[in-house]
Amino acid sequence: MSLFVQKYGGTSVGTVERIESVAEKVAGFREQGHDMVVVVSAMSGETNRLIGMANQIQETPDPREMDVLVSTGEQVTIALLCMALKKRGWDARSYTGTQVKILTDNAHTKARIQDIDVSNMRDDLDAGRVVVVAGFQGVDENGNITTLGRGGSDTTGVALAAALKADECQIYTDVDGVYTTDPRVCEGARRLEKITFEEMLEMASQGSKVLQIRAVEFAGKYNVPLRVLHSFQDGPGTLITLDEDFSDMEQPVVSGIAFNRDEAKVTVVGVPDTPGVAARILAPIGAANIEIDVIVQNVSADGTTDMTFTVHRNDVAKAREVLGKVCADVKAREVITDDKIAKVSIVGVGMRSHAGVASKMFDALAEDNINIQMITTSEIKIAVIIDERYLELAVRSLHKAFGLDAIES
Amino acid sequence: MSLFVQKYGGTSVGTVERIESVAEKVAGFREQGHDMVVVVSAMSGETNRLIGMANQIQETPDPREMDVLVSTGEQVTIALLCMALKKRGWDARSYTGTQVKILTDNAHTKARIQDIDVSNMRDDLDAGRVVVVAGFQGVDENGNITTLGRGGSDTTGVALAAALKADECQIYTDVDGVYTTDPRVCEGARRLEKITFEEMLEMASQGSKVLQIRAVEFAGKYNVPLRVLHSFQDGPGTLITLDEDFSDMEQPVVSGIAFNRDEAKVTVVGVPDTPGVAARILAPIGAANIEIDVIVQNVSADGTTDMTFTVHRNDVAKAREVLGKVCADVKAREVITDDKIAKVSIVGVGMRSHAGVASKMFDALAEDNINIQMITTSEIKIAVIIDERYLELAVRSLHKAFGLDAIES
Repeated sequence: MSLFVQKYGGTSVGTVERIESVAEKVAGFREQGHDMVVVVSAMSGETNRLIGMANQIQETPDPREMDVLVSTGEQVTIALLCMALKKRGWDARSYTGTQVKILTDNAHTKARIQDIDVSNMRDDLDAGRVVVVAGFQGVDENGNITTLGRGGSDTTGVALAAALKADECQIYTDVDGVYTTDPRVCEGARRLEKITFEEMLEMASQGSKVLQIRAVEFAGKYNVPLRVLHSFQDGPGTLITLDEDFSDMEQPVVSGIAFNRDEAKVTVVGVPDTPGVAARILAPIGAANIEIDVIVQNVSADGTTDMTFTVHRNDVAKAREVLGKVCADVKAREVITDDKIAKVSIVGVGMRSHAGVASKMFDALAEDNINIQMITTSEIKIAVIIDERYLELAVRSLHKAFGLDAIES
Repeated sequence: MSLFVQKYGGTSVGTVERIESVAEKVAGFREQGHDMVVVVSAMSGETNRLIGMANQIQETPDPREMDVLVSTGEQVTIALLCMALKKRGWDARSYTGTQVKILTDNAHTKARIQDIDVSNMRDDLDAGRVVVVAGFQGVDENGNITTLGRGGSDTTGVALAAALKADECQIYTDVDGVYTTDPRVCEGARRLEKITFEEMLEMASQGSKVLQIRAVEFAGKYNVPLRVLHSFQDGPGTLITLDEDFSDMEQPVVSGIAFNRDEAKVTVVGVPDTPGVAARILAPIGAANIEIDVIVQNVSADGTTDMTFTVHRNDVAKAREVLGKVCADVKAREVITDDKIAKVSIVGVGMRSHAGVASKMFDALAEDNINIQMITTSEIKIAVIIDERYLELAVRSLHKAFGLDAIES
């Protein structure tokens, strides 16, 4: 028999009926003899309702009180889920973050977990009880309620699994697993049986929004086997685990194709090619809280260079404003922006040991006459910036080129 | 400068706008230099919304989880009120029952307060902060969330005032004080400046539902001056205090007229007048959880007696059912019920030392040809049961007879 930590998100517990369904599911696992710890989010819509009230009072609500407010959302769900389990004859006990206790720092609205006291939960599990824990929340050393920030319930699940040394942390969501790419873009997309933490991070940060990056990082750090499953459909989902677990199988070179349409390209043209000029351009961007993704600097020919980077589309106007002043300072010629771009990445731990992955990618794109505007690479990822008109085509071509298309059964 | 504990009920904090009004009011007191502790209920409707969800799952929801669930209601209000105070430039800090901590026994949904830790609140007050506490809730010695039962927020207010040795506990509500009688029944009714705890208990239990009886008992026990005020109108309200406080004024004999239309009269006719028969009749009524108010037993003439008592109108059918069996057991003749009755009481600590109060009451009723069906008395109260058709008339007559009518200005 195993110890499972299961996490159900806001949609999965969005109504009383759905909470009953979750109870049914959890009871099924319990009936098989598994020890169960269940982490739940607030019922969908509830957190926004609470934030809405706060915003009526303060444009930027006081962070400590914000945490007191929004933490009630999960508290409602844990109570209702325990009632639904008891109704089915299973003993259950609910825990707020304070009651567990999930000790965090005091960074309200974005606290980080420091320690988890497992003694009470352990006693309950030993007594045969289902333990139901409010996700997303903790308590600081002075007893103040804290929250972990949006998506924090995934982190709670992984952290509890790590602390309890659970056999698996199962994240129930509205997709049945992690896909090789978005099925809405490429009909050949298929569910992955397994993926490594590193690949998952690259997939997630590239826009495959199945799991919160922080939870995946946490799972990787503590080596907690993580499984993504559908809340209302049966199926094995996708297991996210360590690289080593793949030793028994033929590892594909590329596991998935990620993409992102949220970025815009900013080019500073005719920058005098002197030491420190890159920092002088990028520092004010960072200071303005604009996040930069890909950065490319061309080799200079005439003593000047072009520096190109991508930012979120919402930040283009702000970036232009900042760069207006910087341009004059560094004596650059002009600033050009383009938000009709998209980023496509191939991701896979297998590419570490395989030569020729990049050229295969570029060949596939060239065959479709897709021009590559920028390239960036990491150990397990190659990303290109292209004209957004060709995004779908690029994803489908690469999906096929790397043998990811589902085999017709 | 004084330390005030103020309590605002669900209607007073029913919307974000009203929470802002409460903040405005509290800020006003703070500005005058007073130390402020504010106890709030859940926003009106919220507790019922939560209970509604619980009832969808369990007809009788698990008590521990019920407390986890409904305690979120007040937690929302404390956070929003603190935000509204901060917006106005006043530092404030919210406390759940657990955070205070308000230690209770573990009788979920009807817990009783055992101890209150004032150290954190004291520190906050010393630092100039407004302390905002969730009413109605506490925590048991094992960290489980408990609630004090309906109306428990009043009790929280009084208990905090006692623990902090506050100068006054001010209960803000939707009336501007305690009246000599219900102004809807008697237009001469007027607000009392002061009333004793004992009188207040008699008024409240007789149907003047301004304050929870338990809170008044608590205030009396710890001698906490209690003031009832209107949330949205200015005015001195009514001070509820010890008998001794009246030494400086001419104490009226009767302070108020209470009444109640919720009762029904049950008469067991022709009961053999033997020792122990009263217990044999009333014990099964108590066992069926039917509360009995007035009991009268006539002196027997022919060896049998009639025993009459009143129960809540909702319990009449149940009482008849129970008494059906009892009647046969004790060989009583029959059971008659009458729910067209009302109870009218005169209340006042002054009647202790004044003779002739009862006869003055009966005279006043006789003058209006109102027949008295039952009489019951206590140290500071005389109650009569009459035909409900004469209720309004009786209240007005007694109000006038005892000099309670407002003096025209």
